[in-house]
Amino acid sequence: MSRGLFISFEGTDGSGKTTQYRLFAEYLVSLGYEVVTTREPGGTPISEKIRGIILDPENTEMDDMTEALLFAAGRAQHVAQLIRPSVEAGKIVLCDRFMDSSIAYQGYARGLGDCVRIINEYAVAGMQPDLTFLLDLPPQAGRSRNVKAGKADRLEKQAMEFHSKVYEGYKKLAEIYPDRFIVIDADGSIEEVQARIRREFFERKATRSE
Amino acid sequence: MSRGLFISFEGTDGSGKTTQYRLFAEYLVSLGYEVVTTREPGGTPISEKIRGIILDPENTEMDDMTEALLFAAGRAQHVAQLIRPSVEAGKIVLCDRFMDSSIAYQGYARGLGDCVRIINEYAVAGMQPDLTFLLDLPPQAGRSRNVKAGKADRLEKQAMEFHSKVYEGYKKLAEIYPDRFIVIDADGSIEEVQARIRREFFERKATRSE
Repeated sequence: MSRGLFISFEGTDGSGKTTQYRLFAEYLVSLGYEVVTTREPGGTPISEKIRGIILDPENTEMDDMTEALLFAAGRAQHVAQLIRPSVEAGKIVLCDRFMDSSIAYQGYARGLGDCVRIINEYAVAGMQPDLTFLLDLPPQAGRSRNVKAGKADRLEKQAMEFHSKVYEGYKKLAEIYPDRFIVIDADGSIEEVQARIRREFFERKATRSE
Repeated sequence: MSRGLFISFEGTDGSGKTTQYRLFAEYLVSLGYEVVTTREPGGTPISEKIRGIILDPENTEMDDMTEALLFAAGRAQHVAQLIRPSVEAGKIVLCDRFMDSSIAYQGYARGLGDCVRIINEYAVAGMQPDLTFLLDLPPQAGRSRNVKAGKADRLEKQAMEFHSKVYEGYKKLAEIYPDRFIVIDADGSIEEVQARIRREFFERKATRSE
C-alpha cells in the first residue's frame, strides 16, 4: 500500500480556512480518494481534552509557554494516534491548523521565538505536512468576519496588533518553506477561493509526478 | 527582600518523599520560615487540570511524547504562577516532584532521551531547584509500599522493570548535578529518614553560608 498525503490548512482567524478545507475534503471524496478530516487543537479524545483547557475562557492566567506546550502535547497525540497511521494506510489527511499555527501564533506573535519550532519538531517526530494551504487574507478583513458571526473565543479576543503579527509570521513561513506552502488569495467568494485551491492542488500534484 | 529558596523532593513511587516533604515543611514552619508547599503534576488550577488528563486511567492510549509535553506544560504554569513569585518574595518553596521526575521517568525510563531535558528547560525558564532531596529506596521496596496502601494510579501500574530504570535515572542525575542533589537513604523509620533530611539540609546550608 502506498503512502497517502498529509495536507494542512493555515491562516489567521476568519480567513475562511475551515470552510475551504471542508469543501476541499468533499471534493476529494467525490473524486474517490479516501479522506480523513481533522483539526487542531484536537483530533483525538485526549487532544480534545487538551483543547478544552487551551480554549477555556476561564483560564485567563495561562502562561504563554504553558499554552505552547499544551498545543504541542495535543499535536503529539494527534500525530501518533490519527495522522501517521492514516497517511501510512494510504489516506489523504486534511488538517485544519497544524504546527505552523503554533509557530505563527506562539513563536512570532507572542514572541516565544524559535523554541516553539524545536518543541513542535519533537512533538511531530518527522510528520510534516506534504502541502500547506495558507489562506491569505489581511487580518482586518478576517477579524470582522468572525466578530460578525459571534464566534470569538479566548484566542480570538486578542488585539488587532497580535493578528497582524500572526499574519506576518505566516508570510515568513511561506517564504522559508516554498516547496510545502501554497499561498491562496482568500479574498473573494467561497466558490472563487475553492476553485483556486483545487487548481493549485492539481498543478502541484502534476509537478510532483513529473 | 532577599531571594528565598526552591527545594524539590524526588524519588521513585513509594520512596516516602511525600510524607518526608510534609514533615520537613512543618519543621521549617516551626523554625519561623515562610514556607510554600506544592506538588507536581499540579500546583495551580490550570496545572491541576493538566494533571487530571495525565493521571486519568481512561487515557490508556496516551503517547509518551504527549505525556512528557503535558508534564512540561503544567510545570511552565506552576513556575510562572507560583514558584517564581514565591521564591522572589523570599519564601522557601518545597515541591513534591519537579523536572528531575520528567527526566528520570520520560527521558530515561521511557527512553525519550535528552529532548525531555531540553523541553523542560524551556518550561522552567531558568527556575532550577536550589536543592533536590532524592529519597533513595531500591524500587522493589518502594513498589510494595504503595501496593499495600492501594494507592496505585496509571503511572504506578507500570512494570517493575520501568521502576528500576527510573531509579537508575535518578542516580545518574545525582551524579550529574552533585551541587544540587542530596541523596537521602530512605530505608528506615519515618523519623529516622526525616532526621537525615534535616541534618543534611543544615550541613548544606552551613556550607553555602561560608
